Amino acid sequence: MIASEASLAPELAISEWFNTPVPLTLSGLRGRPVFLHSFQLLCPGCMAQAIPQVQRIERVFAHTDLQIIGIHTVFEHHAAMSPVTLKAFLHEYRLKSPVGVDRAEEGSDVPVTMQRFRLRGTPSSVLIGRDGTILHQAFGVEDDIAVGARIAMALSASPAQSAAAGDDACADSVCASPMPSVVTP
Amino acid sequence: MIASEASLAPELAISEWFNTPVPLTLSGLRGRPVFLHSFQLLCPGCMAQAIPQVQRIERVFAHTDLQIIGIHTVFEHHAAMSPVTLKAFLHEYRLKSPVGVDRAEEGSDVPVTMQRFRLRGTPSSVLIGRDGTILHQAFGVEDDIAVGARIAMALSASPAQSAAAGDDACADSVCASPMPSVVTP
Amino acid sequence: MIASEASLAPELAISEWFNTPVPLTLSGLRGRPVFLHSFQLLCPGCMAQAIPQVQRIERVFAHTDLQIIGIHTVFEHHAAMSPVTLKAFLHEYRLKSPVGVDRAEEGSDVPVTMQRFRLRGTPSSVLIGRDGTILHQAFGVEDDIAVGARIAMALSASPAQSAAAGDDACADSVCASPMPSVVTP
Amino acid sequence: MIASEASLAPELAISEWFNTPVPLTLSGLRGRPVFLHSFQLLCPGCMAQAIPQVQRIERVFAHTDLQIIGIHTVFEHHAAMSPVTLKAFLHEYRLKSPVGVDRAEEGSDVPVTMQRFRLRGTPSSVLIGRDGTILHQAFGVEDDIAVGARIAMALSASPAQSAAAGDDACADSVCASPMPSVVTP
Repeated sequence: MIASEASLAPELAISEWFNTPVPLTLSGLRGRPVFLHSFQLLCPGCMAQAIPQVQRIERVFAHTDLQIIGIHTVFEHHAAMSPVTLKAFLHEYRLKSPVGVDRAEEGSDVPVTMQRFRLRGTPSSVLIGRDGTILHQAFGVEDDIAVGARIAMALSASPAQSAAAGDDACADSVCASPMPSVVTP
Repeated sequence: MIASEASLAPELAISEWFNTPVPLTLSGLRGRPVFLHSFQLLCPGCMAQAIPQVQRIERVFAHTDLQIIGIHTVFEHHAAMSPVTLKAFLHEYRLKSPVGVDRAEEGSDVPVTMQRFRLRGTPSSVLIGRDGTILHQAFGVEDDIAVGARIAMALSASPAQSAAAGDDACADSVCASPMPSVVTP
Repeated sequence: MIASEASLAPELAISEWFNTPVPLTLSGLRGRPVFLHSFQLLCPGCMAQAIPQVQRIERVFAHTDLQIIGIHTVFEHHAAMSPVTLKAFLHEYRLKSPVGVDRAEEGSDVPVTMQRFRLRGTPSSVLIGRDGTILHQAFGVEDDIAVGARIAMALSASPAQSAAAGDDACADSVCASPMPSVVTP
Repeated sequence: MIASEASLAPELAISEWFNTPVPLTLSGLRGRPVFLHSFQLLCPGCMAQAIPQVQRIERVFAHTDLQIIGIHTVFEHHAAMSPVTLKAFLHEYRLKSPVGVDRAEEGSDVPVTMQRFRLRGTPSSVLIGRDGTILHQAFGVEDDIAVGARIAMALSASPAQSAAAGDDACADSVCASPMPSVVTP
């Protein structure tokens, strides 16, 4: 269906990865929910609110199959936020989940992944379902309770269900599984 | 099974209700998940952390069938926290969800519902599944993300599933439903 | 001068004291700066912001001669906020500084001290100088930095200056100096 | 007196200034109190706590003669925190007060001003009196109320007193008096 195709998340375009031994692709992650967060080092809201929230998500969903991915989507002050600075930042802030540098495009200040997802600025986040579709996209930092709820819903969809998204045949041992793996810090 | 029976939530014992036209019982709420929060007016952690979290839960899950219930479990300073004070509190803090006064028991400082749930103090919370079993119980206030995730998981269990808890045949249209109704304030 | 007389703090009218072996009067405290805070138990802003700020003031200025005084200025839900409840509150929140119950006036919901200071509501605070004049009065909770700065300025006025309270020359040098330049955002 | 000389703040060593048309020196600022804050861009505590506090200080003391000065004291990840990144940071965070880049010293990771003040790390702050002496020095972020109080005390010392800095009689009355009684919890 056209409507379904429209909500499929576009692929990432990354020039350099940190915190992962191999490059990641959304197509390669099909079957797992993905929490994508877009940030810039010199964005006050990212440093004060979004990154701490990502760290809480890392902690609470550590034992689930949620894949958290950060995208450094620099669209201003490019010289000030180089991969060298990003690498030191990840070290100092102890962010554990993979972070990719959004690929610059010649002739544009806005990098490629940011364009593809039509992100309005930083911080932004995109929750992608097991079937690769965009479940939720937000500009700005949202309430922790709502974020936790949405991720849990994405986790509760069984891989079987995603493969046959829109199909009735789904979700047998759905709800029991991820519940015990959600831990309180 | 004995194990299952053991985790069934005990019934509430309430001497007076606020914010509800009719008394509530957990057995009458079977089929809906219940977030039970136990508090006392003069408990600093309740006022500073638990009640604000309940208000966020009220907001985020407003359009779901989650039933939030507060229990005023006074186990000290009884004269200082009468129903008259509780009523004014609910008005001033604009708590919308039902609150019951835990029934006092002669010869004991600890009221009946608090005893039945073996609550260790205030604030405490109990998440009860659609099938009436206790999914999670906590003393103190937990991380918003984890709380949001657990409630979402409880919501994602279909009524059909609860009726046949422990049964494989379940949860067909599970995950699609509550997701859109989770709103960000 | 009339203008100076106008800014002299009116006397307190208290029906019952807590946290002090003897009743306090502002005239008896002449020579010491006084931080007066007005609150009600069921006022959300008082519990969430003002009382915690008073506790920080208690801690930071513990070794100075600042006198902190709380006034329980109940102007609504009178039955819900009795002295019995206030006493238990002071115990549970470990507020150490003296608190007086603002004296009720027949035929008025607003108690006497609240009327005399023309407080607009709760929480409110009044900073009184060593000479008994009102240095600053606020409705709502102000920025910690500005509050700390104002109290320090009040403390820095020497008792000698206060000894000459009511004297024009003195009043000028005391209140005019750097105090007005400390602003709240 | 030797004791007095020992507490005189050492001079700044700055390789590049931002937010000021002319280079600043502490000797040139004699007569005004100075709030010096040392930070690094990739220091989590600086970004989350110290810089927001500096912004509150900027706001509250805007109309006083307090001079706020930031020192970018990079002692690790030097390539990641270049002046280019610092400049973009100051723009994005709208920090208005002057910031100097602490001068690097060949053969040492620790820059010169940081060495002179014997700062233990970032964030650090130093409050300097009108007479050029160090009134208070701290590693880590302190309570807003105490910070506001200390700055107000420094402001309350009259320029006349500073003019006679180094004079025993003066130094006694200035720094000894109420300042030591303002404590940080």
